[in-house]
Amino acid sequence: MSAEPSPVMSPQQQAEREKVYQLIIELAYPATRETALLELSKNTYADLAPMLWKSVGTTCTLLQEIVNIYPIITTPVLKANQSNRVCYALTLLQCVASHPETRPAFLRDQIPMYLYPFLSTTFKSRPFEQLRLTTLGVINALAETGDTEVLIFLIWSEVVPHCLTNMVRGSKLTKIAATSILEKILLDEMGLTYICENHDRFSQVAITLGKMVIHMLKFPCLRVLKHVVRCYLLLTENARARSALRVCLPDLLRDGTFTSLVQHDTCTKQWLQMLLKNLQTNAVNPMGSS
Amino acid sequence: MSAEPSPVMSPQQQAEREKVYQLIIELAYPATRETALLELSKNTYADLAPMLWKSVGTTCTLLQEIVNIYPIITTPVLKANQSNRVCYALTLLQCVASHPETRPAFLRDQIPMYLYPFLSTTFKSRPFEQLRLTTLGVINALAETGDTEVLIFLIWSEVVPHCLTNMVRGSKLTKIAATSILEKILLDEMGLTYICENHDRFSQVAITLGKMVIHMLKFPCLRVLKHVVRCYLLLTENARARSALRVCLPDLLRDGTFTSLVQHDTCTKQWLQMLLKNLQTNAVNPMGSS
Repeated sequence: MSAEPSPVMSPQQQAEREKVYQLIIELAYPATRETALLELSKNTYADLAPMLWKSVGTTCTLLQEIVNIYPIITTPVLKANQSNRVCYALTLLQCVASHPETRPAFLRDQIPMYLYPFLSTTFKSRPFEQLRLTTLGVINALAETGDTEVLIFLIWSEVVPHCLTNMVRGSKLTKIAATSILEKILLDEMGLTYICENHDRFSQVAITLGKMVIHMLKFPCLRVLKHVVRCYLLLTENARARSALRVCLPDLLRDGTFTSLVQHDTCTKQWLQMLLKNLQTNAVNPMGSS
Repeated sequence: MSAEPSPVMSPQQQAEREKVYQLIIELAYPATRETALLELSKNTYADLAPMLWKSVGTTCTLLQEIVNIYPIITTPVLKANQSNRVCYALTLLQCVASHPETRPAFLRDQIPMYLYPFLSTTFKSRPFEQLRLTTLGVINALAETGDTEVLIFLIWSEVVPHCLTNMVRGSKLTKIAATSILEKILLDEMGLTYICENHDRFSQVAITLGKMVIHMLKFPCLRVLKHVVRCYLLLTENARARSALRVCLPDLLRDGTFTSLVQHDTCTKQWLQMLLKNLQTNAVNPMGSS
Protein backbone atom coordinates (compact mmCIF):
# COMPACT_ATOMS: atom_id res chain seq x y z
CA MET A 1 0.00 0.00 0.00
CA SER A 2 1.74 3.17 -1.14
CA ALA A 3 0.18 5.20 1.69
CA GLU A 4 2.41 3.34 4.19
CA PRO A 5 5.61 5.19 5.10
CA SER A 6 8.58 3.87 3.15
CA PRO A 7 11.53 2.75 5.28
CA VAL A 8 13.92 4.91 3.22
CA MET A 9 11.95 8.11 3.91
CA SER A 10 14.14 11.06 4.90
CA PRO A 11 13.36 12.91 8.15
CA GLN A 12 12.18 15.83 6.02
CA GLN A 13 9.78 13.60 4.04
CA GLN A 14 8.59 12.09 7.31
CA ALA A 15 7.85 15.55 8.68
CA GLU A 16 6.02 16.54 5.49
CA ARG A 17 3.94 13.38 5.74
CA GLU A 18 3.08 14.07 9.38
CA LYS A 19 1.99 17.57 8.41
CA VAL A 20 -0.31 16.18 5.69
CA TYR A 21 -1.84 13.72 8.16
CA GLN A 22 -2.36 16.52 10.67
CA LEU A 23 -4.18 18.60 8.00
CA ILE A 24 -6.34 15.61 7.06
CA ILE A 25 -7.34 15.26 10.73
CA GLU A 26 -8.13 18.99 10.82
CA LEU A 27 -10.45 18.51 7.81
CA ALA A 28 -12.78 16.53 10.06
CA TYR A 29 -13.50 19.49 12.36
CA PRO A 30 -15.72 22.35 11.16
CA ALA A 31 -13.60 24.92 13.00
CA THR A 32 -10.32 23.94 11.30
CA ARG A 33 -11.76 22.64 8.02
CA GLU A 34 -11.53 25.72 5.80
CA THR A 35 -7.84 26.35 6.54
CA ALA A 36 -7.07 22.65 6.13
CA LEU A 37 -8.87 22.59 2.76
CA LEU A 38 -6.83 25.57 1.59
CA GLU A 39 -3.52 24.15 2.80
CA LEU A 40 -4.14 20.64 1.43
CA SER A 41 -5.29 21.96 -1.94
CA LYS A 42 -1.88 23.66 -2.30
CA ASN A 43 -0.13 20.42 -1.34
CA THR A 44 1.88 18.52 -3.94
CA TYR A 45 2.68 15.50 -1.78
CA ALA A 46 2.76 12.48 -4.14
CA ASP A 47 0.68 10.20 -1.93
CA LEU A 48 -1.91 12.79 -0.98
CA ALA A 49 -4.64 11.02 -3.00
CA PRO A 50 -4.50 7.63 -1.22
CA MET A 51 -3.99 9.41 2.12
CA LEU A 52 -7.19 11.40 1.55
CA TRP A 53 -9.18 8.48 0.17
CA LYS A 54 -8.17 5.97 2.83
CA SER A 55 -8.47 8.20 5.88
CA VAL A 56 -11.72 7.77 7.77
CA GLY A 57 -14.49 10.15 6.80
CA THR A 58 -12.44 12.40 4.51
CA THR A 59 -14.31 11.61 1.28
CA CYS A 60 -17.53 12.13 3.18
CA THR A 61 -16.28 15.52 4.40
CA LEU A 62 -15.34 16.56 0.87
CA LEU A 63 -18.73 15.47 -0.48
CA GLN A 64 -20.40 17.40 2.33
CA GLU A 65 -18.54 20.52 1.19
CA ILE A 66 -19.89 19.87 -2.34
CA VAL A 67 -23.47 19.13 -1.30
CA ASN A 68 -23.65 22.03 1.17
CA ILE A 69 -23.38 24.46 -1.70
CA TYR A 70 -26.23 22.95 -3.78
CA PRO A 71 -28.94 25.21 -2.29
CA ILE A 72 -26.84 28.31 -3.01
CA ILE A 73 -26.05 27.57 -6.68
CA THR A 74 -29.72 27.82 -7.64
CA THR A 75 -29.67 31.52 -6.74
CA PRO A 76 -27.23 34.18 -7.98
CA VAL A 77 -25.87 34.91 -4.48
CA LEU A 78 -22.83 32.60 -4.49
CA LYS A 79 -19.99 34.61 -2.96
CA ALA A 80 -16.27 34.42 -3.80
CA ASN A 81 -15.33 32.88 -0.44
CA GLN A 82 -18.04 30.22 -0.77
CA SER A 83 -16.94 29.38 -4.31
CA ASN A 84 -13.27 29.28 -3.27
CA ARG A 85 -13.99 26.88 -0.45
CA VAL A 86 -15.78 24.42 -2.75
CA CYS A 87 -12.97 24.82 -5.26
CA TYR A 88 -10.43 23.72 -2.61
CA ALA A 89 -12.54 20.60 -2.03
CA LEU A 90 -12.76 20.07 -5.80
CA THR A 91 -8.99 20.38 -6.10
CA LEU A 92 -8.60 17.60 -3.53
CA LEU A 93 -11.11 15.46 -5.43
CA GLN A 94 -9.14 16.16 -8.62
CA CYS A 95 -6.08 14.82 -6.85
CA VAL A 96 -8.01 11.61 -6.04
CA ALA A 97 -9.27 11.42 -9.65
CA SER A 98 -5.73 11.76 -11.03
CA HIS A 99 -4.05 9.11 -8.90
CA PRO A 100 -4.03 5.62 -10.49
CA GLU A 101 -4.46 3.98 -7.09
CA THR A 102 -7.61 5.89 -6.14
CA ARG A 103 -9.16 6.54 -9.59
CA PRO A 104 -10.99 3.18 -9.94
CA ALA A 105 -12.73 3.63 -6.57
CA PHE A 106 -13.44 7.29 -7.39
CA LEU A 107 -15.29 6.13 -10.52
CA ARG A 108 -16.94 3.13 -8.87
CA ASP A 109 -18.42 5.42 -6.23
CA GLN A 110 -19.57 7.77 -9.00
CA ILE A 111 -18.08 10.83 -7.30
CA PRO A 112 -18.17 12.95 -10.50
CA MET A 113 -21.98 12.75 -10.42
CA TYR A 114 -21.89 14.98 -7.32
CA LEU A 115 -20.07 17.66 -9.33
CA TYR A 116 -22.29 17.75 -12.41
CA PRO A 117 -24.85 20.12 -10.83
CA PHE A 118 -22.13 22.81 -10.86
CA LEU A 119 -21.75 22.41 -14.64
CA SER A 120 -25.37 23.26 -15.33
CA THR A 121 -25.32 26.56 -13.45
CA THR A 122 -25.87 29.57 -15.70
CA PHE A 123 -25.04 32.63 -13.58
CA LYS A 124 -22.23 34.58 -15.18
CA SER A 125 -20.51 35.97 -12.06
CA ARG A 126 -16.90 35.08 -11.32
CA PRO A 127 -17.64 32.73 -8.36
CA PHE A 128 -19.87 30.62 -10.63
CA GLU A 129 -17.37 30.69 -13.50
CA GLN A 130 -14.62 29.58 -11.11
CA LEU A 131 -16.80 26.74 -9.84
CA ARG A 132 -17.52 25.49 -13.37
CA LEU A 133 -13.89 25.78 -14.42
CA THR A 134 -12.62 23.85 -11.38
CA THR A 135 -15.27 21.16 -11.89
CA LEU A 136 -14.24 20.76 -15.53
CA GLY A 137 -10.67 20.44 -14.21
CA VAL A 138 -11.65 17.36 -12.20
CA ILE A 139 -13.31 15.77 -15.23
CA ASN A 140 -10.38 16.69 -17.45
CA ALA A 141 -8.05 14.99 -14.99
CA LEU A 142 -10.10 11.83 -15.46
CA ALA A 143 -10.47 12.17 -19.23
CA GLU A 144 -6.79 12.69 -19.94
CA THR A 145 -5.93 9.24 -18.58
CA GLY A 146 -7.43 7.81 -21.78
CA ASP A 147 -8.67 4.77 -19.80
CA THR A 148 -11.60 2.94 -21.42
CA GLU A 149 -13.09 2.65 -17.91
CA VAL A 150 -13.08 6.42 -17.57
CA LEU A 151 -14.45 6.95 -21.05
CA ILE A 152 -17.33 4.56 -20.46
CA PHE A 153 -18.09 6.33 -17.20
CA LEU A 154 -18.07 9.75 -18.85
CA ILE A 155 -20.35 8.58 -21.67
CA TRP A 156 -22.69 6.76 -19.31
CA SER A 157 -22.93 9.73 -16.99
CA GLU A 158 -23.80 12.05 -19.91
CA VAL A 159 -20.96 14.49 -19.52
CA VAL A 160 -21.02 15.52 -23.22
CA PRO A 161 -24.09 17.82 -23.05
CA HIS A 162 -22.49 19.57 -20.04
CA CYS A 163 -19.30 20.10 -22.05
CA LEU A 164 -21.23 21.49 -25.03
CA THR A 165 -23.10 24.00 -22.85
CA ASN A 166 -19.86 25.20 -21.28
CA MET A 167 -18.11 25.38 -24.66
CA VAL A 168 -20.67 27.94 -25.78
CA ARG A 169 -21.40 29.87 -22.59
CA GLY A 170 -18.11 29.72 -20.72
CA SER A 171 -15.24 32.16 -20.35
CA LYS A 172 -12.07 31.50 -22.36
CA LEU A 173 -10.58 29.06 -19.83
CA THR A 174 -13.89 27.27 -19.33
CA LYS A 175 -14.25 26.89 -23.10
CA ILE A 176 -10.76 25.40 -23.27
CA ALA A 177 -11.40 22.96 -20.42
CA ALA A 178 -14.76 21.81 -21.79
CA THR A 179 -13.49 21.45 -25.37
CA SER A 180 -10.48 19.54 -24.10
CA ILE A 181 -12.79 16.94 -22.46
CA LEU A 182 -14.72 16.52 -25.72
CA GLU A 183 -11.39 16.14 -27.52
CA LYS A 184 -10.34 13.31 -25.16
CA ILE A 185 -13.65 11.54 -25.86
CA LEU A 186 -13.18 11.91 -29.63
CA LEU A 187 -9.62 10.57 -29.37
CA ASP A 188 -11.02 7.21 -28.34
CA GLU A 189 -12.53 5.06 -31.08
CA MET A 190 -15.58 4.19 -29.01
CA GLY A 191 -16.03 7.83 -27.98
CA LEU A 192 -15.87 8.90 -31.63
CA THR A 193 -18.45 6.26 -32.58
CA TYR A 194 -20.65 7.35 -29.65
CA ILE A 195 -20.69 10.94 -30.91
CA CYS A 196 -21.05 10.12 -34.62
CA GLU A 197 -23.45 7.16 -34.48
CA ASN A 198 -26.40 9.26 -33.36
CA HIS A 199 -27.45 12.05 -35.70
CA ASP A 200 -28.77 14.40 -32.99
CA ARG A 201 -25.66 13.97 -30.89
CA PHE A 202 -23.34 14.67 -33.83
CA SER A 203 -25.43 17.71 -34.83
CA GLN A 204 -25.23 19.16 -31.33
CA VAL A 205 -21.45 18.78 -31.35
CA ALA A 206 -21.11 20.27 -34.86
CA ILE A 207 -23.42 23.19 -34.03
CA THR A 208 -21.50 23.91 -30.82
CA LEU A 209 -18.11 23.86 -32.56
CA GLY A 210 -19.60 26.10 -35.28
CA LYS A 211 -20.82 28.61 -32.69
CA MET A 212 -17.35 28.67 -31.13
CA VAL A 213 -15.77 29.46 -34.51
CA ILE A 214 -18.21 32.34 -35.08
CA HIS A 215 -17.57 33.63 -31.54
CA MET A 216 -13.86 33.77 -32.36
CA LEU A 217 -14.52 36.31 -35.11
CA LYS A 218 -15.10 38.86 -32.33
CA PHE A 219 -12.92 37.22 -29.66
CA PRO A 220 -10.06 35.42 -31.39
CA CYS A 221 -8.15 33.04 -29.13
CA LEU A 222 -5.48 30.67 -30.40
CA ARG A 223 -5.85 28.20 -27.50
CA VAL A 224 -9.58 27.87 -28.04
CA LEU A 225 -9.13 27.58 -31.81
CA LYS A 226 -6.51 24.87 -31.34
CA HIS A 227 -8.93 22.62 -29.44
CA VAL A 228 -11.81 23.36 -31.81
CA VAL A 229 -9.73 22.48 -34.89
CA ARG A 230 -8.51 19.30 -33.20
CA CYS A 231 -12.09 18.25 -32.43
CA TYR A 232 -13.11 18.84 -36.05
CA LEU A 233 -10.04 16.90 -37.25
CA LEU A 234 -10.86 13.94 -34.97
CA LEU A 235 -14.44 13.95 -36.25
CA THR A 236 -13.17 13.56 -39.84
CA GLU A 237 -11.87 10.11 -38.88
CA ASN A 238 -15.48 8.92 -38.95
CA ALA A 239 -16.85 8.45 -42.48
CA ARG A 240 -20.34 9.72 -41.68
CA ALA A 241 -19.10 12.76 -39.75
CA ARG A 242 -16.65 13.50 -42.58
CA SER A 243 -19.49 13.62 -45.13
CA ALA A 244 -21.56 15.84 -42.85
CA LEU A 245 -18.66 18.22 -42.18
CA ARG A 246 -18.09 18.67 -45.92
CA VAL A 247 -21.40 20.54 -45.80
CA CYS A 248 -21.44 22.08 -42.33
CA LEU A 249 -17.85 23.10 -41.55
CA PRO A 250 -17.92 26.90 -41.06
CA ASP A 251 -16.52 28.79 -44.09
CA LEU A 252 -14.50 30.87 -41.62
CA LEU A 253 -12.16 27.88 -41.27
CA ARG A 254 -11.66 27.62 -45.04
CA ASP A 255 -11.42 31.27 -46.11
CA GLY A 256 -8.22 32.21 -44.30
CA THR A 257 -9.98 34.24 -41.55
CA PHE A 258 -7.74 32.70 -38.88
CA THR A 259 -4.50 32.55 -40.91
CA SER A 260 -2.80 35.30 -38.93
CA LEU A 261 -4.02 33.83 -35.61
CA VAL A 262 -2.44 30.41 -36.28
CA GLN A 263 0.64 31.59 -38.18
CA HIS A 264 3.07 31.02 -35.28
CA ASP A 265 1.51 27.77 -34.08
CA THR A 266 2.79 24.97 -36.34
CA CYS A 267 0.64 22.36 -34.65
CA THR A 268 -2.71 24.13 -35.09
CA LYS A 269 -1.73 25.18 -38.63
CA GLN A 270 -1.02 21.56 -39.58
CA TRP A 271 -4.23 20.30 -37.95
CA LEU A 272 -6.23 22.88 -39.88
CA GLN A 273 -4.54 21.85 -43.14
CA MET A 274 -5.20 18.16 -42.42
CA LEU A 275 -8.81 18.94 -41.56
CA LEU A 276 -9.38 20.75 -44.87
CA LYS A 277 -7.54 18.01 -46.78
CA ASN A 278 -9.63 15.26 -45.12
CA LEU A 279 -12.76 17.10 -46.20
CA GLN A 280 -11.79 17.29 -49.88
CA THR A 281 -14.19 15.00 -51.74
CA ASN A 282 -12.59 11.66 -52.66
CA ALA A 283 -9.57 12.47 -50.52
CA VAL A 284 -8.06 9.43 -48.88
CA ASN A 285 -8.34 9.92 -45.14
CA PRO A 286 -4.74 9.77 -43.87
CA MET A 287 -5.71 9.35 -40.22
CA GLY A 288 -8.51 6.91 -39.72
CA SER A 289 -9.52 3.47 -40.75
CA SER A 290 -13.18 4.20 -41.34
CA MET B 1 -50.18 8.75 -16.64
CA SER B 2 -51.11 5.40 -18.15
CA ALA B 3 -51.50 3.81 -14.71
CA GLU B 4 -54.67 5.88 -14.19
CA PRO B 5 -57.87 4.02 -15.05
CA SER B 6 -59.12 4.98 -18.47
CA PRO B 7 -62.75 6.26 -18.57
CA VAL B 8 -63.59 3.79 -21.35
CA MET B 9 -62.50 0.77 -19.31
CA SER B 10 -64.97 -2.13 -19.43
CA PRO B 11 -66.29 -3.57 -16.14
CA GLN B 12 -64.18 -6.66 -16.86
CA GLN B 13 -61.01 -4.60 -17.32
CA GLN B 14 -61.86 -2.67 -14.18
CA ALA B 15 -62.18 -5.93 -12.24
CA GLU B 16 -58.88 -7.21 -13.65
CA ARG B 17 -57.22 -3.98 -12.61
CA GLU B 18 -58.64 -4.20 -9.09
CA LYS B 19 -57.31 -7.77 -8.84
CA VAL B 20 -53.83 -6.62 -9.88
CA TYR B 21 -53.91 -3.83 -7.28
CA GLN B 22 -55.03 -6.30 -4.64
CA LEU B 23 -52.10 -8.61 -5.50
CA ILE B 24 -49.67 -5.68 -5.36
CA ILE B 25 -50.95 -4.86 -1.88
CA GLU B 26 -50.50 -8.52 -0.90
CA LEU B 27 -46.85 -8.31 -2.06
CA ALA B 28 -46.16 -6.02 0.86
CA TYR B 29 -47.00 -8.64 3.50
CA PRO B 30 -44.61 -11.56 4.13
CA ALA B 31 -47.51 -13.96 4.70
CA THR B 32 -49.16 -13.31 1.32
CA ARG B 33 -46.05 -12.34 -0.65
CA GLU B 34 -45.07 -15.66 -2.24
CA THR B 35 -48.55 -16.33 -3.68
CA ALA B 36 -48.81 -12.73 -4.88
CA LEU B 37 -45.39 -13.01 -6.57
CA LEU B 38 -46.50 -16.18 -8.37
CA GLU B 39 -49.85 -14.72 -9.44
CA LEU B 40 -48.43 -11.39 -10.59
CA SER B 41 -45.59 -13.06 -12.51
CA LYS B 42 -48.23 -14.90 -14.59
CA ASN B 43 -50.11 -11.65 -15.19
CA THR B 44 -50.17 -10.14 -18.66
CA TYR B 45 -51.96 -6.91 -17.73
CA ALA B 46 -50.56 -4.20 -20.04
CA ASP B 47 -50.04 -1.59 -17.31
CA LEU B 48 -48.58 -3.97 -14.76
CA ALA B 49 -45.12 -2.35 -15.02
CA PRO B 50 -46.14 1.22 -14.05
CA MET B 51 -48.53 -0.17 -11.44
CA LEU B 52 -45.65 -2.10 -9.83
CA TRP B 53 -43.14 0.70 -10.13
CA LYS B 54 -45.39 3.45 -8.85
CA SER B 55 -46.99 1.61 -5.96
CA VAL B 56 -45.40 2.39 -2.60
CA GLY B 57 -42.64 0.00 -1.53
CA THR B 58 -43.10 -2.57 -4.30
CA THR B 59 -39.69 -2.10 -5.94
CA CYS B 60 -38.15 -2.27 -2.49
CA THR B 61 -40.03 -5.53 -1.82
CA LEU B 62 -38.79 -7.01 -5.10
CA LEU B 63 -35.21 -5.96 -4.36
CA GLN B 64 -35.51 -7.50 -0.91
CA GLU B 65 -36.49 -10.79 -2.55
CA ILE B 66 -33.34 -10.51 -4.70
CA VAL B 67 -30.99 -9.52 -1.91
CA ASN B 68 -32.37 -12.11 0.55
CA ILE B 69 -31.02 -14.87 -1.67
CA TYR B 70 -27.45 -13.50 -1.88
CA PRO B 71 -26.18 -15.48 1.15
CA ILE B 72 -27.59 -18.70 -0.29
CA ILE B 73 -26.10 -18.43 -3.79
CA THR B 74 -22.56 -18.66 -2.44
CA THR B 75 -23.28 -22.23 -1.31
CA PRO B 76 -24.65 -25.11 -3.42
CA VAL B 77 -27.80 -25.47 -1.27
CA LEU B 78 -30.19 -23.29 -3.27
CA LYS B 79 -33.48 -25.20 -3.45
CA ALA B 80 -36.03 -25.26 -6.27
CA ASN B 81 -38.66 -23.36 -4.28
CA GLN B 82 -36.15 -20.67 -3.30
CA SER B 83 -35.00 -20.28 -6.89
CA ASN B 84 -38.59 -20.19 -8.16
CA ARG B 85 -39.54 -17.45 -5.74
CA VAL B 86 -36.65 -15.22 -6.85
CA CYS B 87 -37.54 -16.00 -10.47
CA TYR B 88 -41.07 -14.70 -9.90
CA ALA B 89 -39.57 -11.47 -8.58
CA LEU B 90 -37.20 -11.37 -11.57
CA THR B 91 -40.14 -11.85 -13.95
CA LEU B 92 -41.82 -8.80 -12.40
CA LEU B 93 -38.61 -6.81 -12.75
CA GLN B 94 -38.40 -7.93 -16.39
CA CYS B 95 -41.87 -6.52 -16.86
CA VAL B 96 -40.64 -3.17 -15.46
CA ALA B 97 -37.54 -3.35 -17.69
CA SER B 98 -39.64 -3.98 -20.80
CA HIS B 99 -42.15 -1.16 -20.37
CA PRO B 100 -41.12 2.11 -22.08
CA GLU B 101 -42.67 4.15 -19.25
CA THR B 102 -40.70 2.48 -16.45
CA ARG B 103 -37.47 1.49 -18.27
CA PRO B 104 -35.66 4.85 -17.90
CA ALA B 105 -36.18 4.85 -14.12
CA PHE B 106 -35.26 1.17 -13.94
CA LEU B 107 -31.91 2.02 -15.56
CA ARG B 108 -31.40 5.24 -13.62
CA ASP B 109 -31.79 3.34 -10.37
CA GLN B 110 -29.34 0.72 -11.66
CA ILE B 111 -31.66 -2.18 -10.79
CA PRO B 112 -29.82 -4.65 -13.10
CA MET B 113 -26.74 -4.30 -10.87
CA TYR B 114 -28.68 -6.17 -8.15
CA LEU B 115 -29.11 -9.12 -10.52
CA TYR B 116 -25.53 -9.48 -11.72
CA PRO B 117 -24.44 -11.57 -8.69
CA PHE B 118 -26.74 -14.33 -9.98
CA LEU B 119 -24.87 -14.39 -13.30
CA SER B 120 -21.56 -15.18 -11.69
CA THR B 121 -22.79 -18.25 -9.80
CA THR B 122 -21.15 -21.47 -10.98
CA PHE B 123 -23.18 -24.30 -9.37
CA LYS B 124 -24.63 -26.51 -12.06
CA SER B 125 -27.87 -27.60 -10.36
CA ARG B 126 -31.21 -26.75 -11.93
CA PRO B 127 -32.24 -24.06 -9.39
CA PHE B 128 -29.03 -22.13 -10.19
CA GLU B 129 -29.43 -22.63 -13.94
CA GLN B 130 -33.00 -21.34 -13.70
CA LEU B 131 -31.84 -18.31 -11.76
CA ARG B 132 -29.16 -17.45 -14.34
CA LEU B 133 -31.56 -17.98 -17.25
CA THR B 134 -34.27 -15.77 -15.74
CA THR B 135 -31.70 -13.07 -14.94
CA LEU B 136 -30.45 -13.14 -18.53
CA GLY B 137 -34.10 -12.79 -19.54
CA VAL B 138 -34.35 -9.46 -17.70
CA ILE B 139 -31.19 -8.18 -19.39
CA ASN B 140 -32.34 -9.45 -22.76
CA ALA B 141 -35.61 -7.57 -22.31
CA LEU B 142 -33.54 -4.41 -21.88
CA ALA B 143 -31.09 -5.18 -24.68
CA GLU B 144 -33.70 -5.91 -27.31
CA THR B 145 -35.05 -2.36 -27.09
CA GLY B 146 -31.94 -1.26 -29.02
CA ASP B 147 -31.94 2.04 -27.03
CA THR B 148 -28.55 3.75 -26.87
CA GLU B 149 -29.33 4.53 -23.21
CA VAL B 150 -29.68 0.82 -22.51
CA LEU B 151 -26.57 -0.06 -24.48
CA ILE B 152 -24.47 2.49 -22.62
CA PHE B 153 -25.79 1.15 -19.34
CA LEU B 154 -24.98 -2.46 -20.29
CA ILE B 155 -21.46 -1.53 -21.40
CA TRP B 156 -20.84 0.63 -18.35
CA SER B 157 -22.08 -2.05 -15.99
CA GLU B 158 -19.78 -4.64 -17.59
CA VAL B 159 -22.41 -7.12 -18.62
CA VAL B 160 -20.29 -8.58 -21.46
CA PRO B 161 -17.96 -10.72 -19.29
CA HIS B 162 -21.06 -12.18 -17.58
CA CYS B 163 -22.53 -13.05 -20.98
CA LEU B 164 -19.30 -14.70 -22.12
CA THR B 165 -19.11 -16.89 -19.00
CA ASN B 166 -22.72 -18.00 -19.45
CA MET B 167 -22.22 -18.62 -23.18
CA VAL B 168 -19.57 -21.21 -22.31
CA ARG B 169 -20.89 -22.72 -19.09
CA GLY B 170 -24.65 -22.49 -19.49
CA SER B 171 -27.29 -24.97 -20.54
CA LYS B 172 -28.70 -24.64 -24.06
CA LEU B 173 -31.29 -22.01 -23.15
CA THR B 174 -28.81 -20.05 -21.06
CA LYS B 175 -26.32 -20.09 -23.95
CA ILE B 176 -29.03 -18.76 -26.26
CA ALA B 177 -30.05 -15.98 -23.85
CA ALA B 178 -26.47 -14.89 -23.17
CA THR B 179 -25.43 -14.97 -26.85
CA SER B 180 -28.55 -13.04 -27.76
CA ILE B 181 -27.51 -10.20 -25.41
CA LEU B 182 -24.04 -10.09 -27.00
CA GLU B 183 -25.72 -10.03 -30.41
CA LYS B 184 -27.81 -6.99 -29.43
CA ILE B 185 -24.65 -5.21 -28.30
CA LEU B 186 -22.88 -6.02 -31.58
CA LEU B 187 -25.90 -4.80 -33.58
CA ASP B 188 -25.22 -1.28 -32.32
CA GLU B 189 -22.33 0.60 -33.92
CA MET B 190 -20.99 1.80 -30.59
CA GLY B 191 -21.35 -1.67 -29.09
CA LEU B 192 -19.42 -3.15 -32.00
CA THR B 193 -16.68 -0.56 -31.58
CA TYR B 194 -16.59 -1.21 -27.83
CA ILE B 195 -15.97 -4.92 -28.42
CA CYS B 196 -13.51 -4.54 -31.30
CA GLU B 197 -11.52 -1.49 -30.14
CA ASN B 198 -9.83 -3.34 -27.32
CA HIS B 199 -7.73 -6.34 -28.29
CA ASP B 200 -8.30 -8.31 -25.06
CA ARG B 201 -12.03 -7.75 -25.20
CA PHE B 202 -12.26 -8.87 -28.82
CA SER B 203 -10.09 -11.93 -28.08
CA GLN B 204 -12.32 -12.98 -25.20
CA VAL B 205 -15.40 -12.73 -27.43
CA ALA B 206 -13.71 -14.63 -30.30
CA ILE B 207 -12.41 -17.34 -27.96
CA THR B 208 -15.84 -17.76 -26.38
CA LEU B 209 -17.62 -18.04 -29.75
CA GLY B 210 -14.92 -20.51 -30.85
CA LYS B 211 -15.50 -22.66 -27.75
CA MET B 212 -19.23 -22.68 -28.47
CA VAL B 213 -18.61 -23.89 -32.02
CA ILE B 214 -16.41 -26.73 -30.76
CA HIS B 215 -19.01 -27.62 -28.11
CA MET B 216 -21.58 -27.99 -30.88
CA LEU B 217 -19.56 -30.81 -32.44
CA LYS B 218 -20.78 -32.98 -29.57
CA PHE B 219 -24.02 -31.13 -28.83
CA PRO B 220 -25.31 -29.66 -32.08
CA CYS B 221 -28.08 -27.10 -31.63
CA LEU B 222 -29.44 -24.99 -34.46
CA ARG B 223 -30.72 -22.20 -32.20
CA VAL B 224 -27.34 -21.79 -30.53
CA LEU B 225 -25.54 -21.95 -33.87
CA LYS B 226 -27.85 -19.31 -35.31
CA HIS B 227 -26.87 -16.77 -32.63
CA VAL B 228 -23.18 -17.68 -32.81
CA VAL B 229 -23.08 -17.23 -36.60
CA ARG B 230 -24.94 -13.93 -36.30
CA CYS B 231 -22.40 -12.67 -33.74
CA TYR B 232 -19.52 -13.63 -36.03
CA LEU B 233 -21.26 -11.96 -38.97
CA LEU B 234 -21.79 -8.73 -37.01
CA LEU B 235 -18.12 -8.76 -35.98
CA THR B 236 -17.08 -8.83 -39.66
CA GLU B 237 -18.56 -5.34 -40.04
CA ASN B 238 -15.54 -4.04 -38.17
CA ALA B 239 -12.37 -3.92 -40.28
CA ARG B 240 -10.03 -4.97 -37.47
CA ALA B 241 -12.26 -7.81 -36.28
CA ARG B 242 -12.65 -8.95 -39.90
CA SER B 243 -8.87 -9.27 -40.31
CA ALA B 244 -8.58 -11.14 -37.03
CA LEU B 245 -11.42 -13.53 -37.88
CA ARG B 246 -9.75 -14.41 -41.19
CA VAL B 247 -7.20 -16.14 -38.97
CA CYS B 248 -9.21 -17.27 -35.95
CA LEU B 249 -12.64 -18.33 -37.27
CA PRO B 250 -13.01 -22.05 -36.39
CA ASP B 251 -12.47 -24.31 -39.42
CA LEU B 252 -15.63 -26.16 -38.37
CA LEU B 253 -17.62 -23.24 -39.76
CA ARG B 254 -15.85 -23.43 -43.13
CA ASP B 255 -15.59 -27.19 -43.70
CA GLY B 256 -19.28 -28.02 -43.96
CA THR B 257 -19.51 -29.66 -40.52
CA PHE B 258 -22.80 -27.91 -39.82
CA THR B 259 -24.28 -28.11 -43.34
CA SER B 260 -26.92 -30.67 -42.40
CA LEU B 261 -27.76 -28.77 -39.17
CA VAL B 262 -28.52 -25.52 -41.01
CA GLN B 263 -30.02 -27.02 -44.19
CA HIS B 264 -33.64 -26.22 -43.31
CA ASP B 265 -32.93 -22.78 -41.79
CA THR B 266 -32.58 -20.33 -44.68
CA CYS B 267 -31.69 -17.46 -42.39
CA THR B 268 -28.77 -19.15 -40.61
CA LYS B 269 -27.56 -20.63 -43.92
CA GLN B 270 -27.46 -17.17 -45.51
CA TRP B 271 -25.73 -15.61 -42.51
CA LEU B 272 -23.09 -18.33 -42.62
CA GLN B 273 -22.56 -17.75 -46.35
CA MET B 274 -22.29 -13.98 -45.81
CA LEU B 275 -19.86 -14.54 -42.95
CA LEU B 276 -17.57 -16.67 -45.09
CA LYS B 277 -17.87 -14.25 -48.02
CA ASN B 278 -17.01 -11.26 -45.78
CA LEU B 279 -13.89 -13.09 -44.66
CA GLN B 280 -12.58 -13.75 -48.18
CA THR B 281 -9.48 -11.60 -48.57
CA ASN B 282 -10.12 -8.45 -50.63
CA ALA B 283 -13.85 -9.13 -50.51
CA VAL B 284 -15.93 -5.98 -50.42
CA ASN B 285 -17.87 -6.04 -47.15
CA PRO B 286 -21.52 -5.88 -48.19
CA MET B 287 -22.80 -5.03 -44.72
CA GLY B 288 -20.72 -2.44 -42.99
CA SER B 289 -19.18 0.92 -43.66
CA SER B 290 -15.88 0.28 -41.95
